[in-house]
Amino acid sequence: MTERRYDPTSGEWVTFATHRQHRTYKPKADFCPLCPSRPGSPATEIPFESFEVVTFDNRFPSFSPNPPVPDVEGNGLFGVTTAAGRCEVLVYSDDHTKTMADLSIERVRMLVDIWTDRWVVIGSEREVSYVMPFENKGEVVGTTLSHPHGQIYGYPEIPPRPLKELRSAQRHLSINGTCVECDVVASELEDGRRVVASNERWLAWVPFWARFPYEVHVATKIHRPSLAALDQRDREQLAEILLDVTRTYDALWSFSLPYIMAFHQRPTNEDEAWDEVSHLHIEFSPPNRTRDRLKFLAGSELAGGAFVTDVSPEVAATSLRKARAKKI
Amino acid sequence: MTERRYDPTSGEWVTFATHRQHRTYKPKADFCPLCPSRPGSPATEIPFESFEVVTFDNRFPSFSPNPPVPDVEGNGLFGVTTAAGRCEVLVYSDDHTKTMADLSIERVRMLVDIWTDRWVVIGSEREVSYVMPFENKGEVVGTTLSHPHGQIYGYPEIPPRPLKELRSAQRHLSINGTCVECDVVASELEDGRRVVASNERWLAWVPFWARFPYEVHVATKIHRPSLAALDQRDREQLAEILLDVTRTYDALWSFSLPYIMAFHQRPTNEDEAWDEVSHLHIEFSPPNRTRDRLKFLAGSELAGGAFVTDVSPEVAATSLRKARAKKI
Repeated sequence: MTERRYDPTSGEWVTFATHRQHRTYKPKADFCPLCPSRPGSPATEIPFESFEVVTFDNRFPSFSPNPPVPDVEGNGLFGVTTAAGRCEVLVYSDDHTKTMADLSIERVRMLVDIWTDRWVVIGSEREVSYVMPFENKGEVVGTTLSHPHGQIYGYPEIPPRPLKELRSAQRHLSINGTCVECDVVASELEDGRRVVASNERWLAWVPFWARFPYEVHVATKIHRPSLAALDQRDREQLAEILLDVTRTYDALWSFSLPYIMAFHQRPTNEDEAWDEVSHLHIEFSPPNRTRDRLKFLAGSELAGGAFVTDVSPEVAATSLRKARAKKI
Repeated sequence: MTERRYDPTSGEWVTFATHRQHRTYKPKADFCPLCPSRPGSPATEIPFESFEVVTFDNRFPSFSPNPPVPDVEGNGLFGVTTAAGRCEVLVYSDDHTKTMADLSIERVRMLVDIWTDRWVVIGSEREVSYVMPFENKGEVVGTTLSHPHGQIYGYPEIPPRPLKELRSAQRHLSINGTCVECDVVASELEDGRRVVASNERWLAWVPFWARFPYEVHVATKIHRPSLAALDQRDREQLAEILLDVTRTYDALWSFSLPYIMAFHQRPTNEDEAWDEVSHLHIEFSPPNRTRDRLKFLAGSELAGGAFVTDVSPEVAATSLRKARAKKI
């Protein structure tokens, strides 16, 4: 059963992909499906003896180009549709033990090119409206394969969270005549208290309203709607600041910090004039609230959507700047 | 630092309560602050040698009646305000080892009265706009105290998730002239495939669009905007169906199933005509996708707000009905 069902009480679609119950779950390193296929060992999902970066269709997709016919019929109240879209895997390295922070700047620069390429290619599919590259890192955020990799989802419509951001940006634009993210970046740069790292083109900072204690956003200093709008210099510096942030995270408590990382950018459908209100940014959300305690999404966050954070963003940014100074 | 900060990129408020970093964390049973104070032992938070049910202000509140002055100043872009509201703890029993499923029907009936009473009392406070009773059960959903208890938050504004439901219900009402939850309950009753339990006044079912594999909603069969609108018979039968659902959960895999449980109902402010679009319902969200595997909220759910579920609601409801039959 792979299908989408509409929740008329929230106006959101939920995707069902029951075959994902049987997806590969924490295999031993010897049986990692994202490692290279080595002579004398069983073939993995990647038919090469070594590789730099590989991208391919997820074997257990939530969305696919030719989705099956839905299992149930909808009615006027309960909408049902096919789970059309794309789910790709992006393997960062053939070395099972690495993380993004361990990669060379050249390799991360390559990832930037691939994220951009896949955003363009997947986004050009008729049934795709929004492309989101993301990475779930660490068992505590639910990663079932520890080999360094990310995912790229091509959604059939704009997912609820980016849609809410776009609607807020539209309101802000109509009132102030400016891009809200441009205003936020300018304000954080001027204030400085929450800045973690910065280069000519990019800013990394703990948001004033951080939902996760050590949340870091990375955004372009000048308005860029999407990965495809980046020039060569932007791309080089994006690779640089992503490495900077991930290495800073690992220096914070001297272990490889888990996180969820996701790109927010322009929808790929042409329904509206998205360029003015889309400002490419990358959100890192680590689950830790201390070295050994996690922040859980429970009643207030999950049932209410109301986040309560235990760490001051100014204190978190100070700790991250100290960690960053230590690593250099 | 206890304050609220506004996120202009999403239009949501985030609450900061940094003293919560020092809240009591998984104390040994001998030092449980929610146990009765017993002669010869250190006093707990509850100055009685035994009790049935106790409610009191959370010692580590996110919201309080006299919140401190915010730490930072806001500006036109970044709003700041005090964290005014209420956070109460509701202890279900003086027996440290019990869960809701272990309580007597009389005790759960008492909880219904207390949820109702606190909804009215907290909701009548000038600074409170929405009252949400909820329970986080189990270490895997982040519970730091294992003694059976729930919480009641009085929010200064309607939290994002209930607000989205209310706006959807308003749209549905304006198009169809009906309450969307009334329509959903009628449709699920008629269909039957997702029904888990039912009595004269209440229905418990797996939603057609369940975000969590074993999610169960409990709602009144006839329109009731809030706990305060329930008559005696409604209250009795609510206690009955809550016990039915929690005991069914424990019978599913023969262990005490963790869950997040929350009440969604009418806002307590008078800004709008809420009665027509508010339909009291209780949402149970267990984190398990199998007996020993959890569903994590990762990139798609957290960064995108787009849920992907691994279990068919019809299959989940069938399993729950079987578990229910077993327990009786």
